Amino acid sequence: MVKTPQDWMRQAIEMAVQNVRFQHGGPFGALVVRDGEVVGSGVNSVIAMNDPTAHAEIVAIRAACHNLDSFQLTGCELYSSCEPCPMCMGAIYWARPERVYFGCSRSDAGEAGFDDALIYRELGLAPGARAIAAIPLLRDEALAAFTEWAVSPVKMRY
Amino acid sequence: MVKTPQDWMRQAIEMAVQNVRFQHGGPFGALVVRDGEVVGSGVNSVIAMNDPTAHAEIVAIRAACHNLDSFQLTGCELYSSCEPCPMCMGAIYWARPERVYFGCSRSDAGEAGFDDALIYRELGLAPGARAIAAIPLLRDEALAAFTEWAVSPVKMRY
Repeated sequence: MVKTPQDWMRQAIEMAVQNVRFQHGGPFGALVVRDGEVVGSGVNSVIAMNDPTAHAEIVAIRAACHNLDSFQLTGCELYSSCEPCPMCMGAIYWARPERVYFGCSRSDAGEAGFDDALIYRELGLAPGARAIAAIPLLRDEALAAFTEWAVSPVKMRY
Repeated sequence: MVKTPQDWMRQAIEMAVQNVRFQHGGPFGALVVRDGEVVGSGVNSVIAMNDPTAHAEIVAIRAACHNLDSFQLTGCELYSSCEPCPMCMGAIYWARPERVYFGCSRSDAGEAGFDDALIYRELGLAPGARAIAAIPLLRDEALAAFTEWAVSPVKMRY
């Protein structure tokens, strides 16, 4: 029987719930689906792995790319139990699935203690004006890396 | 001799240049420094690892957290040969180093073919209005994961 988006979302939600019950990490689960099959999945593993990037979506994207032997998720859909944070949205743009479905909203996440909204706001500020200041340094020298890239035989868009 | 921010930045730039010369990946390098020592480093490994999240900053943050046995980079500085993209900025907010130094700007990256600016723009749009649509689904059911989290004995802020 063909699964619906609701079926996949319920699976992502169940992973999120179990992740808390098993005391593995935060209340988040994600699936990458292609042609009616799960090609990667992940749960929040920040605490268990000591990895602040191990959000459910990042874990699922990395797993799917590994399984598909590709750094692109063409033709895939991502299901996440919660609206992706800016880090995960960035990863989604680099991986380029067709679309994303999410359960809870960023404001639900905020009420649960996860301040995604802060990061969305901060990214709209100039780098130097942010709570974690981002300071330009030695741009002229740093351009050397792009000069090297421009003439590299392996230059590839990703 | 105590190293200056310029010294660390030159090291990140050199890693970026070598990453292209060794044909490993894109022209990006990053370092995490604490108390005058490198605690993690990374180069862009998207193509080599088939991992769209393997930007230099993410690789460096994961390495530093692994080395420090912590999901927080308290007291650390991050040096990146280029202004971090939204994914990496998100990771920086979750890891919470003290500050970030960057070499090239996002517009330099854009001219070199890396469209970070597109992602910055897209994140400012409503989820449903983006080029990769993000669609809410089953929020009422998804809230169950946060309900579980609220009463979890292992609830921990990260």
